[in-house]
Amino acid sequence: MATQHSTRTRELQKLIRREALDALVITSPTDWYYLTGFTGEAGALIADRRGLTLVTDGRFIVQAGQELRGVGVVEQKDGLFRACGDLLRTAHRTRVGFDANQLTVLQSQLLKKAAGRETRFVAVTGMVQRLRARKDAGELAQMRKAAVLASAVVESAIKLLKPGVREFEIAAEIEYRMRKGGASGAAFESIVAFGARAALPHARPTAKRLRKNELVVMDLGAILGKYCSDITRTVYVGKAPARVRLWYQAVKEAQMAAIEAVEPGRSCSEVDAAARGVLASYRLDRYFIHSTGHGLGLEVHEEPRLARGQKTQLASGNVITVEPGVYFEGVGGIRIEDDVVVHEGRSEVLTRASRDFIEL
Amino acid sequence: MATQHSTRTRELQKLIRREALDALVITSPTDWYYLTGFTGEAGALIADRRGLTLVTDGRFIVQAGQELRGVGVVEQKDGLFRACGDLLRTAHRTRVGFDANQLTVLQSQLLKKAAGRETRFVAVTGMVQRLRARKDAGELAQMRKAAVLASAVVESAIKLLKPGVREFEIAAEIEYRMRKGGASGAAFESIVAFGARAALPHARPTAKRLRKNELVVMDLGAILGKYCSDITRTVYVGKAPARVRLWYQAVKEAQMAAIEAVEPGRSCSEVDAAARGVLASYRLDRYFIHSTGHGLGLEVHEEPRLARGQKTQLASGNVITVEPGVYFEGVGGIRIEDDVVVHEGRSEVLTRASRDFIEL
Repeated sequence: MATQHSTRTRELQKLIRREALDALVITSPTDWYYLTGFTGEAGALIADRRGLTLVTDGRFIVQAGQELRGVGVVEQKDGLFRACGDLLRTAHRTRVGFDANQLTVLQSQLLKKAAGRETRFVAVTGMVQRLRARKDAGELAQMRKAAVLASAVVESAIKLLKPGVREFEIAAEIEYRMRKGGASGAAFESIVAFGARAALPHARPTAKRLRKNELVVMDLGAILGKYCSDITRTVYVGKAPARVRLWYQAVKEAQMAAIEAVEPGRSCSEVDAAARGVLASYRLDRYFIHSTGHGLGLEVHEEPRLARGQKTQLASGNVITVEPGVYFEGVGGIRIEDDVVVHEGRSEVLTRASRDFIEL
Repeated sequence: MATQHSTRTRELQKLIRREALDALVITSPTDWYYLTGFTGEAGALIADRRGLTLVTDGRFIVQAGQELRGVGVVEQKDGLFRACGDLLRTAHRTRVGFDANQLTVLQSQLLKKAAGRETRFVAVTGMVQRLRARKDAGELAQMRKAAVLASAVVESAIKLLKPGVREFEIAAEIEYRMRKGGASGAAFESIVAFGARAALPHARPTAKRLRKNELVVMDLGAILGKYCSDITRTVYVGKAPARVRLWYQAVKEAQMAAIEAVEPGRSCSEVDAAARGVLASYRLDRYFIHSTGHGLGLEVHEEPRLARGQKTQLASGNVITVEPGVYFEGVGGIRIEDDVVVHEGRSEVLTRASRDFIEL
C-alpha cells in the first residue's frame, strides 16, 4: 500500500472503532480510490479493523491485481451485495456500517439478506467523505495543477468569443484544450451560456450563436491526476450598460467578501452570509438563487457545502469553490467562481484568471 | 406537453393503475427527461393518475417554466424529500411507488417521515426504465445519428494511430471530433488502450505511447440530441501474428452469431450464449470475462442486459450493444462492439464502421 493509502486507511479504522463498528461497507468508487488507488468502477470495499477487502467482478480482477497492494480481492460471480453479505456473515462481522446516502434501498435489502440475522447494520453517513474533505499535501499539489489548467483554458476561451460562434463550439474547444493539457476529461459538462441563456445557472451549451451586447457565462473544470477544478468567468461582448457593470461589481465584491471570510473554524453558513450580505447591500440578494459554494476534490461536489443553515466548520485542508451570482430572467446572469484552500492564517486561491470586468 | 411526452405519461399511468398505486416518485433525471423534457439535474417528479408534478429548487425554476408544458412545478426550499412527502400527504396519496434501485436508504427515510403514517410505500423497480427500453420512431431516428457520428469518429481515430502517440492524445481527438460533430459530450470516458493495457476491458487512457506490434482497443460513444451511441474497434499496429488474427476472427464470428440471434421474443441470455458458444468452439470462452451487451438510449447502460441468466425477452424497439471480447493478461485484448435495434423481421445495425481486421 502506498503511504497515503495506509494513512487514510488508519484514519478510517479510527472512525470505525469510534463508532464501535466491526466493519464498514463502502460502495462509492471515489471513496475506494481514495483509500486504495483502485480505479475500477464496479464493486464494494469492506473495511474492518484488520484491513481492506475489495469485492468486484471479472472485468476488474486483473486491474485490481495491478493497482492494489495489501488489499484482499474477492471475485463475485453471483451478485455483488450477496457476496459482500456472505463475507460479512462468514467473518462474523455483527455490527456493520453502511452509507445511507449511497446505498439504495434494494442494495441494502440484498446485503441484509445475505449477511443473515446475526449482522446488524448501522447507517453512518459520509464517513469517508469527511476524511476526503481535508486534503493532504499531495492532493493540494495536484489540485493546484488542475486549477491552473482550468484558469488557462477559461482565459484562452474568452479569446474565442466573437459574434457568430455557437455555445457548443466554445464548449468543444474548452474540453479539447483541457484534454490537451493532460486532463482525463471535464469535471462536468462545461457551461457556455450566451445572452438570456446566462440567466440559467446550469445552462447546457446549445447551437445558439453569440451576438453583440450579450453577457457570456463560462463555467468549466478539468480533472487532472484525478482531482477536479471548477472556475466561472463572465464577460460582456460589446460596451456594457451601466447596470451590467454594477451587477458585475456587486458579484465581485460579494465573492471577495466570502473569500475573506474563509478560515478554519468559521461555519459554512457564515461564508455564505458574507456573499449574500454584500449582494443585499446592492438589493440584489433575491437574484442570487443558489448557494455560495461547495467542496471540491476527487469529485466536483464534495463536503463541505457553503449554504444557508450549514453549521459545519471549515477546517484547514478543505478546498471549496466560492461562486456567488445574480440571474435575471430573459436578460442574463453573472457568476464569478474560484477555488480556495482553507489554511491556518491566509487562505489560498488556486484559480488564477483575472476577475476584472472584461468587455470584448 | 409534446406528443411523445403525453404518450409516455399515459403509458406510465397505465402501469401505475395496474400496480394499484396512487402515485409514483421518480428521482432519476433521465426518467423525468423522458417523461417531460425537463433537463434540470435536481428534483423529483411525482406521477399520479391525474398528471405530473415536478418538485425542484430555485436554480431550476426558470428552466422548468421554459421546458415544461402541462406539468405542475413546486419549488422546494427546505429539503427535496420533505417537500415530496408533504405533497403526497396533503394530496392523500396513500399507496406510493418508488424505485428501490434508485432511492437511497436516507432519501427513503426522509420521504417516509414527511409523508406521514397514512402513506404506504411500495418498491416498484425500473418502471420508467422498462418504458424507455422500447424506443419510438423519433428516438430511433436520433440514435441512428448518434451511431453514425461515433462510427465516423472511430474510423477517423484509427487514422491517427502512429507509433509514438499517447493514449490520452487519441482520447482528446476522439472527444473533440464528437463535439465538433454536434455531440453534447462523450457518452462515457473514451477507452483508448495500447498493447497490454488492452487486456483491461475498462482501461482509462494514460500517457502510454503506442509502439509497433501492439493491439489497440478504442471504445467510445457520443451523446447526440440526448441519445447515446457506443462502438468499439480493435486494430493491430504492424503485421499481426497468426494467433492475433485467429482471436480477431473468433471475436468477429462471435459478434455476428450474437447479432444473428437478435429478434423479438428471444431471451437476452440466448443472445449472450450465441457469442459465448462461438468463442467456446475456439476454446476462447474463458477469456471472455464480461457480458455480451446492454441496452442503450438516453443512458449508456440501460435495460435490457445481455448476460448469462437474463431471461428478459427482447422486444421490438430495444436498442442494444453487442460486444464480445477476449482478454489476455500481459498481452492485450480484442473487442468488437456495435449498436443494434431489435425489429420484427430483420434487426438493424446502427453503427457503420468496418469490422474487417485492420493492420496499420
